[in-house]
Formats: sequence, C-alpha cells, structure tokens
Amino acid sequence: MNVPVIVPPGVAFLNGHFTAENIITKTTRSGDLVGVFQDDAAWRALPADTPIYQVEMLQSPQGEGELFVGTTHLNPGRVGDEFYMTRGHFHQRREQGEVYFGLRGSGLLLLQSEQGEARLEQVSPGSVHIIPGNTAHRLINTGSEVLSALAVWPTIAGHDYASLAQGFKQRVFLREGKIQAKEVQNG
Amino acid sequence: MNVPVIVPPGVAFLNGHFTAENIITKTTRSGDLVGVFQDDAAWRALPADTPIYQVEMLQSPQGEGELFVGTTHLNPGRVGDEFYMTRGHFHQRREQGEVYFGLRGSGLLLLQSEQGEARLEQVSPGSVHIIPGNTAHRLINTGSEVLSALAVWPTIAGHDYASLAQGFKQRVFLREGKIQAKEVQNG
Repeated sequence: MNVPVIVPPGVAFLNGHFTAENIITKTTRSGDLVGVFQDDAAWRALPADTPIYQVEMLQSPQGEGELFVGTTHLNPGRVGDEFYMTRGHFHQRREQGEVYFGLRGSGLLLLQSEQGEARLEQVSPGSVHIIPGNTAHRLINTGSEVLSALAVWPTIAGHDYASLAQGFKQRVFLREGKIQAKEVQNG
Repeated sequence: MNVPVIVPPGVAFLNGHFTAENIITKTTRSGDLVGVFQDDAAWRALPADTPIYQVEMLQSPQGEGELFVGTTHLNPGRVGDEFYMTRGHFHQRREQGEVYFGLRGSGLLLLQSEQGEARLEQVSPGSVHIIPGNTAHRLINTGSEVLSALAVWPTIAGHDYASLAQGFKQRVFLREGKIQAKEVQNG
C-alpha cells in the first residue's frame, strides 16, 4: 500500500486471547467472591488466592455511545457441588444491553430480569447471546475446560453488584453426576 | 438439565453465517450504489442487479441501550479498477460507536472523522475494529474471496448516508497489480 494502513488489535476466536499493545486484565479470586457460593464451608476451605476468572479487555475511547470489547475466561471447578461462576451484575445504566459470543468450553449464561425471572442460555463455541437491557447476567462453567466468552458492551453501562446482594434465583450444581439447576429463595 | 435451557442463535466464525429462526437479510446491488464508484462508465456497464454485499442480522429488542448483531458479506470484484465496497455511513446518532470483527477474506476498513480525516485499518480473520463515535465507516474488499465482518452496534445508532453524499476522502484501487489508496477531493 502507498498510504499507511493501521494494523488493529486481533482476537483468536479459539480461545478469546487478544493481541494488542495495551491489554487490560483483571483476575477475580475465590477470596473476592464473598457470599457468592452457597456452600460457605467449601468456599472457606478454598485458598483465597485461587483464581476463578480473568477478564481481558482492549482499550476503548470512553463516553456515551462508545463500546468495550473483552473476553471472560472462567476456570473449570466447583465450590462444594456448585460450579465456578462469575459474580454477575446488572448494568448501572439499567437499559444498557450486552452481547456475548461463546468461544471455548461449555457452560451457561444465567439471565435475570429486575422482576426476578431467571433463565439459562447454553454457552458453547459460536453461541450468540443478545442480553437485553434491564437484565442481570452471570456465566457458569459446567465443563471441564476454561469457558471463554467474548463480549461487547457500552462503556457507559457500569456495574451494579449491590442489587444482587441476595443472589440470583438459580444455582447450578453437579449432583449425582448430572448438571442440575435449582431455584432458590434469594440465593 | 432439570430446568429448560435456551439454545441461543449461533455464528460460524469461519464465515459469519448465523443459525437462528428469524434471520434478517438485505442485499445491496450495483444499481443501489448510485454515485459510489469513481468510474461512472464502468459502473453503468455492470448489470444493475449484480449483488455487491449482503447484511445478515439477528433479531434484537430495540431501544436505548440495546445492541444489534450482524455480519456484512462483501463480494470480491471491481468497478473499473476500484474495489467493491459498502456504501458506508455515519451513525444518525453521531456519538454511537460500533465494533467489527474480521472473519473471512481480506480488506480494509475506511474510517473518516467529521472533520474529514480518513484512515485505513487492515481487515483479516480475527481483526478487531473499535469504531469510535462520530466516525463514518466503509468496508472495502481488496481480496479474491468474500470479505465477511461481524459487527455489534447500538440499535438506536441509525444510518446517515446524506452527510457522505460527496464521498469519502480515500479511494482504493488495483493499479499495476498493486493495491493503492488515493486521496481525493470530495470523493
């Protein structure tokens, strides 16, 4: 080419890892997930520095209308018989949606409306999850390898964890060798 | 599973085709692209029903904060010595950004600010293009196969073609066997 051409960041669709100059990463460890798992004794038995998931993000301009791109890598494992999962959140700007693309591994996306109605979507390589506004979302790894999901969301969305302090209305366990979901009272 | 699990839409990352019950598709043909290519005689010589690109989209809830997911499939070819390209647009809601993921083929993403500054990003499988707000965008297929790019954008963004009636500030040609970009006066 006779004019400069920008080489943009890249993503490996097989595992969701980015190539870029400045990648933002944040690891969430067992000790960060106070009150998230049902079996408190099993959670206390796990070393607090056990990595549960990592979010890898590209730099974005921030502001009204701008979009973030990131991948969540959720490790396989269980706390007691409950599968590893992300904390999950509503967006602070409630009406803001998000899109997830399943890339690697297998799991579930737990969605919950503000009225407390919960539903589960199957996450697998190539799955597309259009998360509407006003909907809390949590990833759950029901498989034996890392669950990686690529996401796009508005930079102004923000996170609201407080509204879910009582937990989601569904929990997912491995019981009798089977993946089982259970409705619970306020988590 | 002992509770219902939703099987969401899927996308084949190799070619950007979706699996879902209701896919929205729109084909843009040569005859729709009045005034887009520089070589008017070559454009007139092309049958008006020649397909140039197709957009394939998933259904989304619409409204403030909601997101669309779609793939653009841009055919290989030239009008005279200028490569096939999409019409390109600003968003009607100027501040709304968009994200493109290159999936298949090779090409360029032409970006242009409201001040008329143009730049080119290389599109290839796995390339990630975070298009900021206030930035017009056009895909150009410089390769010999279909160029497919997956996109996520706000449902409220809208399209503004009128502000680009005079064209983008860069045109991309195959000349002397080489891909060449040229700055032009008002397209």
